[in-house]
Amino acid sequence: MSDVANKIILIVLDGASDRPVGGKTPLAEAGMRNLDRLANGGINGIMDTVGPGIRPGSDTSHLAILGYDPYKYYTGRGPFEAAGVGIDVKGGDIAFRVNFATVENGLVTDRRAGRISDTDQLAGAINEQVKVPGVDIIFKRSTGHRAALVLRGKGLSSAITDTDPKKEGNPIKECHATDDTPEAKHTAEVVNSISSQVLNILDGMPANQERKKQGLPPGNAILIRGAGVVPHIPPFQERYGLKGAVVAAAGLIIGIGKMCGLEYLPTGSMEVESSGSSAKAKMNKALEALETYDFVLVNIKGADEAGHDGNFQKKTQFLSQTDAAFERLGQLKDVLIIVTADHSTPVSIKDHSADPVPILMHGPGVRMDDVAHYNELIAYKGGLHRIIGLDVMPIALDLINKTKKYGA
Amino acid sequence: MSDVANKIILIVLDGASDRPVGGKTPLAEAGMRNLDRLANGGINGIMDTVGPGIRPGSDTSHLAILGYDPYKYYTGRGPFEAAGVGIDVKGGDIAFRVNFATVENGLVTDRRAGRISDTDQLAGAINEQVKVPGVDIIFKRSTGHRAALVLRGKGLSSAITDTDPKKEGNPIKECHATDDTPEAKHTAEVVNSISSQVLNILDGMPANQERKKQGLPPGNAILIRGAGVVPHIPPFQERYGLKGAVVAAAGLIIGIGKMCGLEYLPTGSMEVESSGSSAKAKMNKALEALETYDFVLVNIKGADEAGHDGNFQKKTQFLSQTDAAFERLGQLKDVLIIVTADHSTPVSIKDHSADPVPILMHGPGVRMDDVAHYNELIAYKGGLHRIIGLDVMPIALDLINKTKKYGA
Repeated sequence: MSDVANKIILIVLDGASDRPVGGKTPLAEAGMRNLDRLANGGINGIMDTVGPGIRPGSDTSHLAILGYDPYKYYTGRGPFEAAGVGIDVKGGDIAFRVNFATVENGLVTDRRAGRISDTDQLAGAINEQVKVPGVDIIFKRSTGHRAALVLRGKGLSSAITDTDPKKEGNPIKECHATDDTPEAKHTAEVVNSISSQVLNILDGMPANQERKKQGLPPGNAILIRGAGVVPHIPPFQERYGLKGAVVAAAGLIIGIGKMCGLEYLPTGSMEVESSGSSAKAKMNKALEALETYDFVLVNIKGADEAGHDGNFQKKTQFLSQTDAAFERLGQLKDVLIIVTADHSTPVSIKDHSADPVPILMHGPGVRMDDVAHYNELIAYKGGLHRIIGLDVMPIALDLINKTKKYGA
Repeated sequence: MSDVANKIILIVLDGASDRPVGGKTPLAEAGMRNLDRLANGGINGIMDTVGPGIRPGSDTSHLAILGYDPYKYYTGRGPFEAAGVGIDVKGGDIAFRVNFATVENGLVTDRRAGRISDTDQLAGAINEQVKVPGVDIIFKRSTGHRAALVLRGKGLSSAITDTDPKKEGNPIKECHATDDTPEAKHTAEVVNSISSQVLNILDGMPANQERKKQGLPPGNAILIRGAGVVPHIPPFQERYGLKGAVVAAAGLIIGIGKMCGLEYLPTGSMEVESSGSSAKAKMNKALEALETYDFVLVNIKGADEAGHDGNFQKKTQFLSQTDAAFERLGQLKDVLIIVTADHSTPVSIKDHSADPVPILMHGPGVRMDDVAHYNELIAYKGGLHRIIGLDVMPIALDLINKTKKYGA
């Protein structure tokens, strides 16, 4: 091992961090043999990705960890999701996240349309048939029941409300302007028009008739939320002098990576995230990428989904299976390895929480501490203490000797 | 020992902090018997002098540790260096750091003129013979190959580039304005005129003829850098109600002390910094000063130089020798003792790094923790946790019961 690393791999175990249930957490229970070895040979700590007590989204937390202050650059989830599914968003576009949902007798009966996954036909119909004068409408499906919507044109605003009723049994919400500008009022009308056009178009589509026959909830409506103006984000390479890549499957993370100037390296299309094999494919791709990139961000998503499902055992199993993907990390030379999570997703609350996440840094020159395991119950004893997400890139850049001296 | 200290001694082991090499650091290896005793009887922690991942200069870090936010008061190294060598700088002056260098056939062949040290004759010639209409030129030698330059007059600006080519084998860089003001353009012209006048004046000087005869590189040029407008810094005594002094040999540190209103107490002239004897002289001076001053800053420089040289053994030896100078500290009554570093200077990178530095506080009323050694591998376990440089003075003032209550 040389004295100073010259590359960085940043592995984000999405939502892996948790609260104790009976004194145990999934990370502590999973037996993360390989990550424990890195923790043991590295420096550890806990991290508030956005700030203490701030419950982060995956978007705001990833921005922060990449060194982009979310309070400056975060303009809603839509822009990032839209870029992630491959829409070539432009500054000033209004972008949204969308769910396919099921509406029966005017009420939303399933906010995810039975976690519908084959939405090609439905998305195609929306793209072709929904029309609003003066506005370009770009619609693209994502994984599962997810999709993205972009409005492009003059006189649009993101100052509008969501149409997602949040709870089943309620009608789709009408979109309202949240300020008094004519742009916001106009955009709310555009969104409401799209909502009702979609209902008319989708319900009778063959794909939905087939689902009904099989007793599955049809994807006959869309819930539109997370309006945001596409921001201007200074490119990663310009900011840090590092050529960076992102390995991820979730559209949101891919979108964040792309908008920050990271090159997206696909590992396969729309893969299933809930098994350890996806992690292995990602890690293989990431280790290969380290030969040509200075910085690789890897996002591994399954633990977050198990957390949202409130399934302790599934989360533990996923993490346990995933650990095998980290076996080769210990052999890396000249690479600063950072392992962390973007937020906690406690199985007890089935949602993100602000509980700090464990973070480890391993590589040449790192001051080893006494922490020998990678989990949120022990990481606080480490030499990093308690940092924030925006500290990660400055600390990492310093460890690979790429910071500029402030003063002399 | 009384219940509350009433004086503070702040000892800065310049650049003493390091990264582990084979699991060891110079501080941990040196066997700091006296500092270990203070650590054992005090409270310990790690400190980001400017901020996590911010690689500090000695100037910005000393400002922060003295409680002056460098983002507010730091205007470039020149002003501090100039004050340090004894130039009576005034608000609005433009000040620079200068190296004596060797130029042969138009190229810089040694950026430090063979670490020339006897520069009295050369500096005198520059002061007397270099002339630019309408501008007062004040030039003063510092230790070794270093010097300071101050321009005083109307219509000057610090928005200009350095002339240091940074690498040998290149010509002296032309100074350029970095903004469009006539002041910046004028100042760049002044600097370029000084550069070329100096070359003409110095090359034939007897001192340089003598060096050439001995096969040494002549100090026949100057590299001008770090332009800064002299800032207004609120005096230490006004800010804290403490009469303060600084004991140091490095011009930069003396300059910072003076500009913050600390009285400079010399221990001898231009002493060699690489042995422990200098530390002993400084500590004797500092302990004597505590009889008449409320606050004494002591800067001990040798470890930083060994770090810049990449010499683990030299750094360890220097620290080991220096520790003897701290023997009498344990006997102090009524004095809050603070020992820290201004930044890490890892031997592995031969430059400053942002790795946090160890800090200990020892004195009446301090909450003792379990840390029994003063080094960067263990300090993180202490009761101070991870603080920043700007926290030092407020914590210290509170421990000597000199803070004002916020609220009632």
